[in-house]
This record gives sequence, C-alpha cells and structure tokens, in this order.
Amino acid sequence: MMFMVQMQVTKPFGMDDDVWSSLLEKERAYSQAYQQDGTWQHLWRVAGKFANVSIIEADSAEALHEILTGLPLFPFIEMEITALCQHPNAIAR
Amino acid sequence: MMFMVQMQVTKPFGMDDDVWSSLLEKERAYSQAYQQDGTWQHLWRVAGKFANVSIIEADSAEALHEILTGLPLFPFIEMEITALCQHPNAIAR
Amino acid sequence: MMFMVQMQVTKPFGMDDDVWSSLLEKERAYSQAYQQDGTWQHLWRVAGKFANVSIIEADSAEALHEILTGLPLFPFIEMEITALCQHPNAIAR
Amino acid sequence: MMFMVQMQVTKPFGMDDDVWSSLLEKERAYSQAYQQDGTWQHLWRVAGKFANVSIIEADSAEALHEILTGLPLFPFIEMEITALCQHPNAIAR
Amino acid sequence: MMFMVQMQVTKPFGMDDDVWSSLLEKERAYSQAYQQDGTWQHLWRVAGKFANVSIIEADSAEALHEILTGLPLFPFIEMEITALCQHPNAIAR
Amino acid sequence: MMFMVQMQVTKPFGMDDDVWSSLLEKERAYSQAYQQDGTWQHLWRVAGKFANVSIIEADSAEALHEILTGLPLFPFIEMEITALCQHPNAIAR
Amino acid sequence: MMFMVQMQVTKPFGMDDDVWSSLLEKERAYSQAYQQDGTWQHLWRVAGKFANVSIIEADSAEALHEILTGLPLFPFIEMEITALCQHPNAIAR
Amino acid sequence: MMFMVQMQVTKPFGMDDDVWSSLLEKERAYSQAYQQDGTWQHLWRVAGKFANVSIIEADSAEALHEILTGLPLFPFIEMEITALCQHPNAIAR
Amino acid sequence: MMFMVQMQVTKPFGMDDDVWSSLLEKERAYSQAYQQDGTWQHLWRVAGKFANVSIIEADSAEALHEILTGLPLFPFIEMEITALCQHPNAIAR
Amino acid sequence: MMFMVQMQVTKPFGMDDDVWSSLLEKERAYSQAYQQDGTWQHLWRVAGKFANVSIIEADSAEALHEILTGLPLFPFIEMEITALCQHPNAIAR
Repeated sequence: MMFMVQMQVTKPFGMDDDVWSSLLEKERAYSQAYQQDGTWQHLWRVAGKFANVSIIEADSAEALHEILTGLPLFPFIEMEITALCQHPNAIAR
Repeated sequence: MMFMVQMQVTKPFGMDDDVWSSLLEKERAYSQAYQQDGTWQHLWRVAGKFANVSIIEADSAEALHEILTGLPLFPFIEMEITALCQHPNAIAR
Repeated sequence: MMFMVQMQVTKPFGMDDDVWSSLLEKERAYSQAYQQDGTWQHLWRVAGKFANVSIIEADSAEALHEILTGLPLFPFIEMEITALCQHPNAIAR
Repeated sequence: MMFMVQMQVTKPFGMDDDVWSSLLEKERAYSQAYQQDGTWQHLWRVAGKFANVSIIEADSAEALHEILTGLPLFPFIEMEITALCQHPNAIAR
Repeated sequence: MMFMVQMQVTKPFGMDDDVWSSLLEKERAYSQAYQQDGTWQHLWRVAGKFANVSIIEADSAEALHEILTGLPLFPFIEMEITALCQHPNAIAR
Repeated sequence: MMFMVQMQVTKPFGMDDDVWSSLLEKERAYSQAYQQDGTWQHLWRVAGKFANVSIIEADSAEALHEILTGLPLFPFIEMEITALCQHPNAIAR
Repeated sequence: MMFMVQMQVTKPFGMDDDVWSSLLEKERAYSQAYQQDGTWQHLWRVAGKFANVSIIEADSAEALHEILTGLPLFPFIEMEITALCQHPNAIAR
Repeated sequence: MMFMVQMQVTKPFGMDDDVWSSLLEKERAYSQAYQQDGTWQHLWRVAGKFANVSIIEADSAEALHEILTGLPLFPFIEMEITALCQHPNAIAR
Repeated sequence: MMFMVQMQVTKPFGMDDDVWSSLLEKERAYSQAYQQDGTWQHLWRVAGKFANVSIIEADSAEALHEILTGLPLFPFIEMEITALCQHPNAIAR
Repeated sequence: MMFMVQMQVTKPFGMDDDVWSSLLEKERAYSQAYQQDGTWQHLWRVAGKFANVSIIEADSAEALHEILTGLPLFPFIEMEITALCQHPNAIAR
C-alpha cells in the first residue's frame, strides 16, 4: 500500500544545537535505509519550509506506523497521512 | 521543477450526466498525454475521495498553469499547489 | 487493514424526494452486504447528525476505495479517512 | 451510551523522560483495566501519530468524564468527544 | 444526560416562502412540546443570528437523535452537539 | 442580559502544583459566590475536557467583563462569549 | 450596551436584480433611521468588500436582535457579533 | 498607499458562457486601464488557480474600494486586502 | 484613512509580574497620548477578553505601522488590521 | 520564476535581546544582498505586523529554498509560498 506522508519539522526553542545536529544525522541515515530497501519511494523537500512530502510503501498501517514513529525526529514532526490508490487514469510504467 | 498538485473534484448538483461523462473521458485522455511525455510524473487516487495527488514536472509556473487550466474538469477542481525541491536526504536513483 | 471512515451526508436542496428515498434504500442494502461479510465491522450514527462513524477492514486502499465510491450516496457524502493500527495497549479479545 | 473519543497526546518539551515513561506505564494499566471490564470497547492507534481512536461505553457523561480525566496522561491529551447512536442500517451481531 | 445543542438555521435560496412559514410553525409546536414535558430544558436565541443554544435532557444519544432529527427544520440546520456533566463547582439548586 | 460563556482551561507546563491547587480552590469559591447571588445561572462541565459552559446574567458587558476577568484562573482560560436573547419559541416557566 | 457587528453581504446567484436593488434601497433607509436616532453609532465600509463594521448601542441583546433581524438584507448577511465594554485606558470625550 | 489584493474568481455553475466571456473581456480592459495609469502596479496570476495577486496604489481606502468594486467580475471575486508599508530593509530603486 | 485594529494581548507564562505591570502602565500612557491628539479615535474592550477593538486614523499605512509597533505591549499582541472606508449609507454627523 | 513569499516573524519569549538584535542586523544585510542582485524583487512590510510580503525571482524551487532557509531569522519565520505566473491581462512594462 502507498501512503503520502506530509511532515513539518519544528526545532523547539531552547533545544541544544548539538543534540539537534545529532538527531538530524540519525534522521538522514534512518530515512536513507528505508529509501534503499525501496520502502520510502519518494522524498521531496517543500520549498521554503523545514518540511517534506514522502511516498511510502508499507504492507500495513502497522508497518507504516513503525517506520514513522521510529524516525529520530518523530517527537518534533507534525504528520499528515493520506492513503493512496492506483489511479484509474494512471498509465503503466 | 517539481510541483505537488492536490486536486479535489466536485460534480455540481444538476449537471447533466452525459456532459459529465464526456468531460471525464476527455480528462483521461488529457492527463494520459501528459503522463506519456513524462510531464505528469505521478498520479495517485486519494482513497475514498474524488481526489488525487499529482507530481508534475514543469519548466516554469506558466507551464504548470497551462497544464492545469487546460484540464477539461478544471472549473470543477479545487487545486492546492506546492513547489518541491530535491531533498538533501534523498538518495540518487 | 482497518480504516476509520467518517461520513457526513448532505441532501442537495432541490433533489427529488423519491430519488432520494430510493438512494437511501439502496444505501441500506449496500452497507448491510458489506457488514454481513465482515468487511464493514462497525457502523455508528453520530447523534444529531446525518453522519456516521464506520470501521472498515480492507486488504488495501484500492479495496477501501471501491467500497466507498460504490456507495449509492457517494456523491453526497463528505468523507474523512484515517488509517488505524493495532494499539500497543489494546488487550486481546 | 457509546462515545467516540479521539485523543492526541503531546509530550511537553522539557519533560523528564523518566516521569514520562512512568506516566506511559500507568496509562497502559489504567486503559487495560477499563478494557477488561468492557467499558473501553475499542482502542485503535492512528497510523503515524501519537494518537488514538477509542470507543467507550458509559452510563452517563459523568461516567465518561471520570474515565477520561482519570487518565494519567490527561493533562497532555487533546480530546474530541462524539456521542454515538445505534445506526438504523447496522445489522445485529 | 444533558446535551448542549447549537443550531444554525439556513433557509435555502429559492425555497418557497409558504413552505418555509409552514415549517417554522411546525418547528414551534414541535419544540414547545419537548419544552413542556421537560426534555428541552433551555432554548435561547443567539443575538443577531437565526441560531439557538439549547440544553436538552435525554436518556441516551438515541433519544437525543430522535428529538433532533424529528425537527421540521432538521434538513436546514447545522448542529453542534456537546455532552455535558454536572460541574464539581456547581451549587445545588 | 444573558450570555453564554464557553471556557477552556489550560494549566501551563511547569506551573507549580501548589499554586495551581490554590487557584482552583479560589476559583471554586469565586464561582460559587456568583452562583449563589443568581448571576451565574448555569455551570456545566464539558464531558472529557477541562472546560465548561456557563450561562451568566449581567446588566451590561462591563458587568460581565468584571466577573470574568476576576476569575482566579482568568489568565489560563480561553473564553468565547455569545450574547443570548429570549427565544420566540421558548415557553414561559 | 455597545456591540460591534461585522456584516458580510452576499447576493445569491440568480436573484433578480430589481428585487436586489429594491432591497438595497430599503436597507439604506432602514439603517439611516437607526443612525439618526443614535442607535447605530458607527457604520464603516470594509475596503474592497461588500461588508461593513458597525457599532450599535442597544439596551439589551433582544433590542440588538430586533434591529439586526429587521434588516431588509438580513437573509443574505453573515453576522459576527462582539459585546464591547468601556476600555479602562479610554479617555473621556 | 500600497495594498496587496488577493483575488479568487469563481464562475457560478449555470452562468451563461457568453455573459461570462463578455465579463472577462471587460475585466481585461478595466484592469489594463488602471495598470496603464500606474495605479495597479503589479498583477500576477497564481499558478494553477483562477486567482491573482495584485499590488495597487491608492490615495485612500475609498479610492481602493472604488477600483475593486468597479471590477466587472467583482460579484464573483473573493477578496483579501492587506495594507502594505515601505519595509525598513528595502533598498531604494 | 481609518483602520479597524483588533488586538488580542497574551502575557507569556513566566514573565515577571513587575515587568508586565510596568508595560501596562506605559501602554496606558502611550495609547492615551494618541487618543488625545485624535489619532486613536475609538478604543473598546472586548467583553471577557484581554482584547480590544480600536479605530485609528492615520495618513498612511506607514503612520499606522509606527503607532502599532510602538505599543509597549506590541511583542505580546496579535493584531488584525482592516482598512475602512466611508460607508455610502452613513449619515453625516 | 516568480514566487510570492509571505513571512511572519516571531521572537521566542526568553530569547536574549542582543542575540535577536544581531540576527536582525544580519537579516538586513542578507536580504539587501539579494535585493541588490535583483533576486528579491520586492519587499513590503505588512502594516501593524512583524511580517512581510516578498516577491522573489528564482531559477528553481531549489534556488528559492536556499535563499529562504539561509535567512538568519529562518527558524523564527512562518513561511507561505505561492508560485506566480505572468498574468494574461498584465501589460508589458
């Protein structure tokens, strides 16, 4: 199943910069592992924001939940999840 | 440039069903032409809605505007447009 | 997979009452068929509204989409879909 | 009476992790006690969020209020409450 | 149980004035019957609007639903329902 | 004049519990004094929330303002005020 | 008592222009009568909109309601009412 | 004075296409006259929408109001007006 | 030119009470100076809120901006600005 | 390509004033450099707010993103980005 996930990240005022940098580094590794195994199919930055649009394939909502809540930045991300289907007008690729 | 376009379609109450069917048919052909030439890169149906999430590549906002306003269903679509960038954590494919 | 679907029905002003009644009757039969085969697991009326909260099990977003867009009242329903998971605190039943 | 309760949990930035862990543990025990006695009939996790959808049976709004405000995490939960009825199209189980 | 019900009435443009007047008359009789038997405990007009705030006592959400959906103006009312409890600071009367 | 006042209370994270308890106690005494003299005519708890619905009679907006801003919890309350009238369909009591 | 009333007027599509013109003329006379007797103390146009900001003095919410619902354009106006007080920093005039 | 005006145009369903075309033609002439005399300083299309962002210089809110309400499409435009100032960081041109 | 300014004041949790009191005192003096010279034409308290509705006359948006950003409480005020015009139905005073 | 960027700046409560002043100074230099090279084509202050409306020309969304996220105040700015096109009614300049 495909899900669109829209993430908006907010660094809390007062958070230590080194802690934040370390979280960002872990986030990068974490998201790339899921990209490499084909789960996290697309990852775009939203222009002008600390936000992204992601397309994630997961066998179930539980699998999606595990991926998203495992994100090192999860406590600082506002998520919006949309379940997607094959579109009848989409051409085969 | 990449744009995420979220479209929500509403058939006005009272519109003739044949007119609507004909618009839907034209919409299909129109969107497939842009998919085939690689412009309309992704097209997903939003589960449970007469809505879609599209990823469209266009050289400029003018080019995007021409594609979207040319949609046969354009007068009946509520659009939300988001400019996207390459994400620093995205892996090369 | 489990989905919560919140539906708000609106009868368009000017719609013929007999057409509407016939749609309601078909809606009833349609939803009961999916309840009987175990797909539509829960169906509650929202107090004071022409609205419901439904829990629907579907193998995929495509399957959910087919069920929902097949509803005789679909063109008159505003839908909100939420993907659900097993909750870690939920007890086995 | 049946109520749908939608809960969104937020851990305040700066809260001690041990205090939070201890609250989570108490929350688990608390919610399971109400599940075991049949009051808290359903508990689903919302995919990708620290949130849940609950179906709670309570004799009165006072009883519901006592259950909800007794939650160890209550001060950190945003609640939305919806009173539910038997739906005329629901089949007997 | 006590419920606060906030109702906003909208006369559709194009509705026949006599039909509307007749509905208003029936609405009056209907609401007064429930006021007289003590069910509809309070009914206030919102200043400057075709809207009201009502306090209704009902044994169940089903009973509330029956009262509200039976309103002659029901199809033209936007409802917001809030379940109320005894307040711990309220004095006995 | 009658006003509906909807109050939502929020305890700031980090506020001392004893200070808060003392404010709650003062709030109770304060609201009961206005209930006893007939000003604060109704006070209901919103089920599942640290919130209330109040019906307050006041000779003027100034009088209402004095009552509300005098609440010991005032700095921590989000208020929504609605001016009410006698409803033409309300029966005399 | 003073009330701020914000009014947004919408002419329904399909309404006869002569009927509308006649309503506008009556509206003018109606509002001027209340301005002349000192009730409708201020009336400003919102720049760029078919909307106004009004300051109306009324002895009660009932009196305000009578004035507003008597407006010839009332069925086509969306109203927002705010009760005002003397401000402690306001200078006497 | 400078104002940002954001306009969203909606063609009512059922409006005659020739009437609409004629309005669009008049709109073009009208807006170009104000552009030519330097009043309507900027006019951009919002990508993917029947909407624009305009920067209009006007001596007063009355002058702005006259320009905007004189638009042939005015009854079909939702307007948002924002008063602008010289920015302290803006460089002279 | 006339502007309606709606201000909502929020004291940050943790701000020193003496600092706040001193700001309030300065705010009073500041607003009274502009009231006395006729710039700040009206100042009303919103009933039940730490908020006001103000009518301010300013030669330009720059002049308005200078007045508002000079308020001692400016960093703690959420502002909404609306440009006003003479209303065609307003009577001369 | 042209983008409208609406920025709302918020100084966090508790931030050191000298740090803030230094950020403001850097912001000024940063925005002026992009104004001088013709990228940041317009910069207006929103009257009464710590906010601006900017028109920025960028070859791509990536270029826009680099400009905006490089702003010294970026972590304290809420951004809204709108892609703009040439308007068919705009006159050549």
